[in-house]
Amino acid sequence: MPESRVPAAQVRRFLTAAFASLGLPAGDARTVAGLMTEAELQGSDGHGVIRLVPYARRIRAGGINLTPDIRVVKEKAAMALIDGDNGMGHLVMKKAAELAIAKARQCGVAWVGTRLSNHAGPASLYARMALAQDMVGLYFAVGNANHLPPWGGLDMLLSTNPIAVAVPAGEEPPVVLDMATTVAAYGKVKAKAQRGEQMPVGWMIDRQGQPLTDPKRAEEGFLLPIGGYKGYGLAMIVGLLAGTLNGAAMGSEVVDFNHDDTTITNTGQAILAIDPDAFGELAAFKARVDKLVRELRASERMPGVDRIFMPGEQSHGKRIANEREGLALPPALRAQLDAFARDAGIPLLQDT
Amino acid sequence: MPESRVPAAQVRRFLTAAFASLGLPAGDARTVAGLMTEAELQGSDGHGVIRLVPYARRIRAGGINLTPDIRVVKEKAAMALIDGDNGMGHLVMKKAAELAIAKARQCGVAWVGTRLSNHAGPASLYARMALAQDMVGLYFAVGNANHLPPWGGLDMLLSTNPIAVAVPAGEEPPVVLDMATTVAAYGKVKAKAQRGEQMPVGWMIDRQGQPLTDPKRAEEGFLLPIGGYKGYGLAMIVGLLAGTLNGAAMGSEVVDFNHDDTTITNTGQAILAIDPDAFGELAAFKARVDKLVRELRASERMPGVDRIFMPGEQSHGKRIANEREGLALPPALRAQLDAFARDAGIPLLQDT
Repeated sequence: MPESRVPAAQVRRFLTAAFASLGLPAGDARTVAGLMTEAELQGSDGHGVIRLVPYARRIRAGGINLTPDIRVVKEKAAMALIDGDNGMGHLVMKKAAELAIAKARQCGVAWVGTRLSNHAGPASLYARMALAQDMVGLYFAVGNANHLPPWGGLDMLLSTNPIAVAVPAGEEPPVVLDMATTVAAYGKVKAKAQRGEQMPVGWMIDRQGQPLTDPKRAEEGFLLPIGGYKGYGLAMIVGLLAGTLNGAAMGSEVVDFNHDDTTITNTGQAILAIDPDAFGELAAFKARVDKLVRELRASERMPGVDRIFMPGEQSHGKRIANEREGLALPPALRAQLDAFARDAGIPLLQDT
Repeated sequence: MPESRVPAAQVRRFLTAAFASLGLPAGDARTVAGLMTEAELQGSDGHGVIRLVPYARRIRAGGINLTPDIRVVKEKAAMALIDGDNGMGHLVMKKAAELAIAKARQCGVAWVGTRLSNHAGPASLYARMALAQDMVGLYFAVGNANHLPPWGGLDMLLSTNPIAVAVPAGEEPPVVLDMATTVAAYGKVKAKAQRGEQMPVGWMIDRQGQPLTDPKRAEEGFLLPIGGYKGYGLAMIVGLLAGTLNGAAMGSEVVDFNHDDTTITNTGQAILAIDPDAFGELAAFKARVDKLVRELRASERMPGVDRIFMPGEQSHGKRIANEREGLALPPALRAQLDAFARDAGIPLLQDT
């Protein structure tokens, strides 16, 4: 079935109108819409437009504070803790990233944590905010549903707790790693279900330890961590840094936002900004990154491999293509958006 | 074959004498010996006593500066870059960790990078230094030999670049993750070879992509990253943060210390210290860590699983047992140490 392409600006306007119709102040609606469109542009389809409907469900149920007082509650020269007052996670994390970057400009390095935040989209969005200031960004978050037991266990007490790191380069695209600590992120499972596709073996197992490949049965099993106990350890550590440290939810405290639209999620996130300019000459650093990227790319390849990719390089390519050609939204998602628009009394995407 | 146990203090004295005989100043010999013994105590056998002989070989070849001027070359409030002047890595990293902790006490968070350092033992040694000050420690390092190609490639341009994170708890042992970004660390491959054991399938593959299980053939193949391209991405990012950012070796610049005893390795490392006291009440943080540990441990278990372990819990148990019962050094290693002692004109381990 052919997919029609929609210019990103049109999607952004539609999402802005959608969030305004849900009661977000105009500026906040624009910010959230912009970041969700950015997610879609970079190919993070599990965290892009597809999230409008679940976000709207939670907002309508009263599970989000539409006029939060997002504020710094603890602060030292190179750190801050932000209370998100249960606002949209995008707003909380944008503020956290901006503060971390400003503090890193002064101190060389800075860390900002959040609590009482909410789901904020793909991890790389916030790590990448550092790039515009020629900084390195690292982002950690507690996922909003537990899909992972401790290693050897059956109780799903951990989420996919993602890590993202963005490193500026010179002439090359930035190096951007964005990974769940599970083999697959749960957003990818949802995207498979949306497209009616099966999952590869290795993404999930059921409670008997057997491979689970039908994304519609996802709730009968759990995600597998990368590297076995190592990925379990990483998921726990990310949760300790992004959740426990900030007094945000972790372990059994995590609210499953797929099944609960009203309980405050108390989502925790953390961002670390590092200013390479503090370590030496910025241009020299970028040149070293370029050199590394080029020598990795030039490696002799295994049979059947056409190209060696850097972390984030394919996403970078998608962004360029999507900006030029527009966003490809699957028909089922388009139908969802049309239904949302009719329900909310805003123009259809095609008329936006 | 029964292994004789040796008290840790005796091993520490022996290593101190060994490094003094190699020309290290007395205090530095004690520091390196203490950290190597600590590695052995916590069960990091690939990074403990086994390293004396290769370190000695490099020192005798002139590949280590025995009287380095380890100094801060760049500094801001929450960061520093340390030039290790090609001294023993343990000395450089101990200074880096102490500085990061002191700066984090002031700023809440601090990052210290190193260049012109050398191999410093297991990653967790340095992350754990933060624990004594009730801080969180994160450590990243560029490994000293490349065993990993970029994903899809054949040229070994990346090392096992480890990550360690140590988080203080209250009544529970600290949570300490120490992981290579490969399925197995190369030190574990060496330990398998030393013990004459085979490696499990999944640790290494050969250049044809076939499993490689004989550790004596390790140089014919390469290590596998955890989670496929994710582990490749992590290895690259760790190298960018610990190496490239500091002007230390990365990619093809990495000197293989197994085959080259004289070229300056320009090893890069980084440590991040986070003071939980800056984020809120320290005791409350520790209580939250305890709560999380206990609920993960109490998870229902898969069939055949006797206990769910936290990251670092087994190492913690080994340390307690080894402190009580002494260190179990394999006969082949004991023979190496005896040969070293005779050659260096210091008392045998048993007489130390």
